[in-house]
Amino acid sequence: MTRYASLISSVMAVIFLAGLAVTSPAQENRRGTGNLGVVIERATGSVLIIDTTKRKSLARVDGLGDLSHASVVFSPDQKFAFVFGRDGGLTKIDILNATVSHRIMQAGNSIGGAISDDGSLIAVSNYEPGGVRVFDAFSLKLVADIPAKWTGGLSKTIGLVDAPGKRFIFSLWDAGETWIVDFSSGPSPEITKIKGVGKRPYDALITPDGRYYLVGLFGEDGMTMFDLWQSPIAGRTILSGYGRGEKKLPVYKMPHLEGWALAGHRFALPAIGRHEILWVDTRSFKEVARTKVHGQPVFAVARPDGRHVWVNFAHPRNDTIQVIDTLTAKIVHELKPGPGVLHMEFLPRGNEVWLSVRDSNVVQVYDTKSFAKIAEIPAKSPSGIFLTARANKIGL
Amino acid sequence: MTRYASLISSVMAVIFLAGLAVTSPAQENRRGTGNLGVVIERATGSVLIIDTTKRKSLARVDGLGDLSHASVVFSPDQKFAFVFGRDGGLTKIDILNATVSHRIMQAGNSIGGAISDDGSLIAVSNYEPGGVRVFDAFSLKLVADIPAKWTGGLSKTIGLVDAPGKRFIFSLWDAGETWIVDFSSGPSPEITKIKGVGKRPYDALITPDGRYYLVGLFGEDGMTMFDLWQSPIAGRTILSGYGRGEKKLPVYKMPHLEGWALAGHRFALPAIGRHEILWVDTRSFKEVARTKVHGQPVFAVARPDGRHVWVNFAHPRNDTIQVIDTLTAKIVHELKPGPGVLHMEFLPRGNEVWLSVRDSNVVQVYDTKSFAKIAEIPAKSPSGIFLTARANKIGL
Repeated sequence: MTRYASLISSVMAVIFLAGLAVTSPAQENRRGTGNLGVVIERATGSVLIIDTTKRKSLARVDGLGDLSHASVVFSPDQKFAFVFGRDGGLTKIDILNATVSHRIMQAGNSIGGAISDDGSLIAVSNYEPGGVRVFDAFSLKLVADIPAKWTGGLSKTIGLVDAPGKRFIFSLWDAGETWIVDFSSGPSPEITKIKGVGKRPYDALITPDGRYYLVGLFGEDGMTMFDLWQSPIAGRTILSGYGRGEKKLPVYKMPHLEGWALAGHRFALPAIGRHEILWVDTRSFKEVARTKVHGQPVFAVARPDGRHVWVNFAHPRNDTIQVIDTLTAKIVHELKPGPGVLHMEFLPRGNEVWLSVRDSNVVQVYDTKSFAKIAEIPAKSPSGIFLTARANKIGL
Repeated sequence: MTRYASLISSVMAVIFLAGLAVTSPAQENRRGTGNLGVVIERATGSVLIIDTTKRKSLARVDGLGDLSHASVVFSPDQKFAFVFGRDGGLTKIDILNATVSHRIMQAGNSIGGAISDDGSLIAVSNYEPGGVRVFDAFSLKLVADIPAKWTGGLSKTIGLVDAPGKRFIFSLWDAGETWIVDFSSGPSPEITKIKGVGKRPYDALITPDGRYYLVGLFGEDGMTMFDLWQSPIAGRTILSGYGRGEKKLPVYKMPHLEGWALAGHRFALPAIGRHEILWVDTRSFKEVARTKVHGQPVFAVARPDGRHVWVNFAHPRNDTIQVIDTLTAKIVHELKPGPGVLHMEFLPRGNEVWLSVRDSNVVQVYDTKSFAKIAEIPAKSPSGIFLTARANKIGL
């Protein structure tokens, strides 16, 4: 019996220690989520969870499928990241515990998603089958299936964004339509379909205030702009023929419209097939300036205060970043972070910018005032960088 | 040996279960901080920690001194709230663990504070002794003491805000000056002093992009505006004489300039001593419209998308909220939440607004689309409501 007692005593000690291990770290474990983010590792189908205060990666989460064109949104509590894969995978990651909370294959081929303003719904834009599917953000159970039916069958959908009032907006590549889907009355949405938006909408954005939805057109010069504050909502053409009469350069990469920058009283946008940034007045939507840049711009991203716009470029000039002053539209700084600069993300108050340098397998951190590099974080072929501050933003 | 084996097996099972119990609560404890906030309970010197998803209070933290004019900023990780009391108290609260992390009495009488863009410095604006003190955000140790010296001694300081580039800006009530304090080169700041700003600056704000610093003047009509993107920075007078030639009403309460709303292409601001909201163009800084309202407005707060502006009022008309449409400048809705509506805070994407109704001892939550009341949370004489999303915003 003493041997039993001794053994039991040992057991109790082990359990007691285990018990200690429960509570004490529990408070230590309680960390905030305002300074977290995820980095897409496109080649390996994984994401890194990063801490922007310590400037290091905390963990890697694997098994997310094809992340060659991935995007991420966050739950309002900033505990969960929803990762939209190219292959139709939708993965809900618990970023505090670095685990996959839920994962579904929701379609065959998809191109981005959005979260409703109240955080309750996740929408995914699909090429195959063409349409949008909407899921419960808690369980990833299907709430609504919205096939993008038109006379030609099912259209690929693009440019999916959230809008105030529990709405999603997206456009139909094949049909040239824009649909506004309103979930404010429950799980069966009210759908407004706007036809004749233009040929081949290829991407769209919503301005940070949720007021304007802008559709890029691959099939014609110009874009279509919707002022969502007007009733009824009607599109109008802007920037018509901005490249007319000049020789176009080959398009190496489609500029992302979400890469439009709102900077001061102007938008800065990458011109398709040109080595230029166009500056567009935020009221008139007319071009007011152009900046010649190093290559075909991919993303133009404004520092959160709008004073500078940072631009990266398409292959083969994708080793460079240029920084443009908003007031003068002149380049004020150039960086050579390394081969394959794919993405830029600013800290929410703009004091640092984080860059993914794919072919160097690093994420680099720069001070935006001095332009000094202040950290490097190893990552496998990093592409998109997404910080939890996006949880608070309309359209991101 | 079989008995041993059996016992060991049981032990292992217990340890295994204990092991499960270890990780499970620790992981459960790990909650996000994006949906947290604090409510000031002014009469009791306490704050409530609130969860905006569950719409309930999680805990109360006591012992914060005089909170009759309190404000709050958040650390970038959104784990800590810094509470600035009227009595010079500065308290760092761990909002995840509902504890006081640090507390100091840093002056005799103070009027608000700010956190630097990188989250490393906390600045407090003091009446007594007149000046600004700057503390390390981690330890609350003094980093810099900046007495507001002028020919008349030490001036009270007001309108303290953070600005991009690790700067703080504030104004001197007695001296009519504005000081820009730049910590980007280290703990000994570079200070730029601008004289002749106007008589009796009583409050100031910085626009959400950190570009314009606007100073309200108690001693004269009009305000002074600084465009921080220009070099050198110089003030210019705006809204000069907006009340000239008309009988002024008594000022029951000084309108808070941080209550200015940026809504679409306009600012909405409470007119001092008038039952009006003024609409000011964000480019020309000229008045473009007025809205007659229910009483002397205190705060005009824009829904984050800018479509609506919500206004509360001074005693004795402080039981009412009016909602104004930005496009038409017309009142579209009126609410009577109860006596003593002191503050409004929107969820970051604007789908809900949280109101403190002091004399009913509740915080009320409204859906901003339907205007329906969706929750009530008991609180003791609640005043300011501050959500962690402020951590990501310039000037908040």
